[in-house]
Amino acid sequence: MQNVVNERNGINVEQLMGTIDAVKKEPEIADFEFRAKTDWLGGGHVRTTIQNFYGAKEENTSRTTPIIMEGDEPPVLLGENHGANAVEAILHALASCLTVGFIYNAAAREINVESLSFDMKGKIDLHAFLGLSDKKRPGYENIDVKYKVKADAPREKLVELCDYVQKTSPVLDMLRNPVKVNIRME
Amino acid sequence: MQNVVNERNGINVEQLMGTIDAVKKEPEIADFEFRAKTDWLGGGHVRTTIQNFYGAKEENTSRTTPIIMEGDEPPVLLGENHGANAVEAILHALASCLTVGFIYNAAAREINVESLSFDMKGKIDLHAFLGLSDKKRPGYENIDVKYKVKADAPREKLVELCDYVQKTSPVLDMLRNPVKVNIRME
Repeated sequence: MQNVVNERNGINVEQLMGTIDAVKKEPEIADFEFRAKTDWLGGGHVRTTIQNFYGAKEENTSRTTPIIMEGDEPPVLLGENHGANAVEAILHALASCLTVGFIYNAAAREINVESLSFDMKGKIDLHAFLGLSDKKRPGYENIDVKYKVKADAPREKLVELCDYVQKTSPVLDMLRNPVKVNIRME
Repeated sequence: MQNVVNERNGINVEQLMGTIDAVKKEPEIADFEFRAKTDWLGGGHVRTTIQNFYGAKEENTSRTTPIIMEGDEPPVLLGENHGANAVEAILHALASCLTVGFIYNAAAREINVESLSFDMKGKIDLHAFLGLSDKKRPGYENIDVKYKVKADAPREKLVELCDYVQKTSPVLDMLRNPVKVNIRME
């Protein structure tokens, strides 16, 4: 008998189902702690280093080299375009999260996805950031997400999957609902 | 007379003050729209392309080449580590935002910053993401931010600045307070 990997959408479906079963038996497998270290490089330029994390009951060292993310502002906001700015990074994080949710759950539902892409827009009024208003919010007034998908399932199944992903997406949850953020200076 | 640029912390302070004055006179200068396009590359791997945006009353084309951000999951979460995952990208976005807020406002307050770095941690329980709980939230239960700063100001001034930045940070606002996110399938 051949050892065939049941892969769909680039996802090992057996591993996915195995993970879900394992978490049902041992809930603490689902406890993760992610980490990042960010250094200021001058002006609006930052570099974030991401490598290890804790999850599935152990320190995870699968990344042999650190993952680097850079951020900066454009010149109109006094930076030098070394990277996307913080609110653009939010759009990336959101689309990345919705993608993973859609693709993994499509695999579990035996839907083959051919292509998937997101167009994101965020409207922001910089009065609060510039210290010129304490009535306007500092963040996006709203975020618009338009997504395009090609898959071997009828549209209503895809819409249903989209709705499901909205209930389970970590980043979408953190945008739509308040997150506790503790900040302290060393 | 020499044309000396009044630079502090890598920020052109005259440009910063000029921007604030301009926004006071013409509020619509502060209306920005940021954008991102994210494509699924297979499995948990995504690539986000970021380039133009609207701001300061015009389409901004200062980025001659697009900025690319990649995302992926680690193998324990069925990916291949092509990039940081979505919730790690959130930590980067938050630290990037707090850095810009701190550095720009320090420049405005005539504080010279020698170094600034952030250690970020986010605790998450993956039950909701895996579809195993509708009681636990999908996102981080909490985010811890520890920051280290060296600057030519007494600690109380730096703590006061840190508090001020917390009131004006776009990303922190979007984590602590709900954001309206509209999602639709094309």
